[in-house]
Amino acid sequence: MNYILRDENAIYYECGYSSDNALFLCLGSEKWLITDSRYTLEAKEQIKNAEVIEASDLLKAARNILRSCSVSKIYFDPREWTVWAIESLKKRLPHLYFFPKPDFSHKKRMVKSSEEIELLKRAVELGSEGFDKFADYINRYGLGNSEKLLHFEAKAALSHKGEYDLSFDPIVAINENAAKPHALPTDIKLKSEDLLLVDAGIKYKRYCSDRTRTVFIKDHISFELDQKFSSQKIQKAYDLVRKAHDMAIEKARSGMTGAQIDRLAREVIESGGMGEYFVHSTGHGVGLDIHEMPYISARSQTVVEDGMVFTIEPGIYVPGEFGIRIEDMVVMQRGRVEVL
Amino acid sequence: MNYILRDENAIYYECGYSSDNALFLCLGSEKWLITDSRYTLEAKEQIKNAEVIEASDLLKAARNILRSCSVSKIYFDPREWTVWAIESLKKRLPHLYFFPKPDFSHKKRMVKSSEEIELLKRAVELGSEGFDKFADYINRYGLGNSEKLLHFEAKAALSHKGEYDLSFDPIVAINENAAKPHALPTDIKLKSEDLLLVDAGIKYKRYCSDRTRTVFIKDHISFELDQKFSSQKIQKAYDLVRKAHDMAIEKARSGMTGAQIDRLAREVIESGGMGEYFVHSTGHGVGLDIHEMPYISARSQTVVEDGMVFTIEPGIYVPGEFGIRIEDMVVMQRGRVEVL
Repeated sequence: MNYILRDENAIYYECGYSSDNALFLCLGSEKWLITDSRYTLEAKEQIKNAEVIEASDLLKAARNILRSCSVSKIYFDPREWTVWAIESLKKRLPHLYFFPKPDFSHKKRMVKSSEEIELLKRAVELGSEGFDKFADYINRYGLGNSEKLLHFEAKAALSHKGEYDLSFDPIVAINENAAKPHALPTDIKLKSEDLLLVDAGIKYKRYCSDRTRTVFIKDHISFELDQKFSSQKIQKAYDLVRKAHDMAIEKARSGMTGAQIDRLAREVIESGGMGEYFVHSTGHGVGLDIHEMPYISARSQTVVEDGMVFTIEPGIYVPGEFGIRIEDMVVMQRGRVEVL
Repeated sequence: MNYILRDENAIYYECGYSSDNALFLCLGSEKWLITDSRYTLEAKEQIKNAEVIEASDLLKAARNILRSCSVSKIYFDPREWTVWAIESLKKRLPHLYFFPKPDFSHKKRMVKSSEEIELLKRAVELGSEGFDKFADYINRYGLGNSEKLLHFEAKAALSHKGEYDLSFDPIVAINENAAKPHALPTDIKLKSEDLLLVDAGIKYKRYCSDRTRTVFIKDHISFELDQKFSSQKIQKAYDLVRKAHDMAIEKARSGMTGAQIDRLAREVIESGGMGEYFVHSTGHGVGLDIHEMPYISARSQTVVEDGMVFTIEPGIYVPGEFGIRIEDMVVMQRGRVEVL
């Protein structure tokens, strides 16, 4: 298969190196990484199974290779290429057909190797240590501080003070702000008996972790799954989310579609009468990208197989009142899921 | 002019609101912002001169509007649209011609209004306060800490502990690492008599600041332009970069092209015999985007006019030894530039 890649993670997957300005070209058994002079030294040290080409104009360098090879068709992912870039690439290559094939790199990356699973495990471990550090911070200094400052301290704790990159900008939301799926941190201050939702992850050797906990603020908190809220209504919703989370983890099997696994969690929340408040899908794949295939959603017909890594993250969001989400990363192994 | 936008900042500029999942459609005098249910409440509160449309499938909603209007041609920026998105948009709209027009939104945004200049000034001020906070940190605790930790503390100081978003991931580089334009923070530790390069900025109401200082580490540092290095070679290079920076600021005039302003700085470094080490362009526009038009580069034929805001940032990078850059943001006003 001949193909050309532009996405940093897709390229890293192919050859063990990538930069924010690179192209990867595969023509049969020949492979090239094209990048600019800032990166070529590092690229040559780290690359596997591909030749490094230094170029200031990456598209032109790719065109030159394509012109010198007798290739008639090449695949690209139309979701990762802008109209401008693909048109520039096509210039003066009238006999080459650029075939749009959405997600072909993502599909390749769905089933993880055992090495990748080890990296993801380590990312989850380090992310979990970050949650513990953040709990320490809250226990010592958290009360009375704004969401904005808590958000900052969550980033400090999760990154181990800059030692690891974050997988994404964390969500740190109090009470009714937790009901907004895109909550931006505000000046609202944390007080005793608040609900606090934290969604965060880190990267270990480029592989992402992702985790959410929802906790009740008292003298001493920890981000464990057992939580007791003072409000009965919140407790009921929390128990339902936890049951949905546990049920999906217990009953998911290889061979099920994303939609079937989504159903396992959704059914629990629906039969608890709160289905209308579970407004997103049950999970998503995690790897080099924080969101990747397989998607665990009502519409996903992807068959989940051994080696796939994804999140289970049901939630209940009551606008103006509270939001709850519990999220863990799991891997499908020997037909069942195991929490990472 | 009929056009459709997908870029978050381009949309914000048009209507005073945007989200990470939005489209903006302008058909003559009619304007629509299309976004999903997470954002519509906020959008309706903040929007100016446009109607808010709530949709789960943004492209479909745009198609519906386009189908009901008698429009035959619409502009889009081929650099901001993926092949997949524009093809989805075109579906079942056979009589509508999608005209690719690179950078049309960027060109509109080049000349800033006086309100925008005030916001940029405030961003620069807050960014500069962030540098002072970072100097305080270095003076108290900096020596012996790794680049990684310094990078983390720079983000803490610049963001005023999470109060402001950063314009970009800061660069904090010691000695020879400062010679790498894409320097990632390492475990190297800061010691007395080191050279330290810091490139960082913050956002104020979505408008970016950008600044670089290179300093000599001694008992008490500050990020001012007067710096004395113990190495004569570094001092000579520093003085040259500073002269290039000052010269461009003194001699730039409205009506010059980006290339002419670039020349003002480059000539100084070239006549000092270090032209080969000034490996990037002299500057770039700054606004809602951290890098925007006008580009102050050897190839830029853009005519610089009153109201344009850009950086002046000459540098000298000697591989394996050191890197120096001095960067300030300036605004063209009454024919000359003024440092923000």
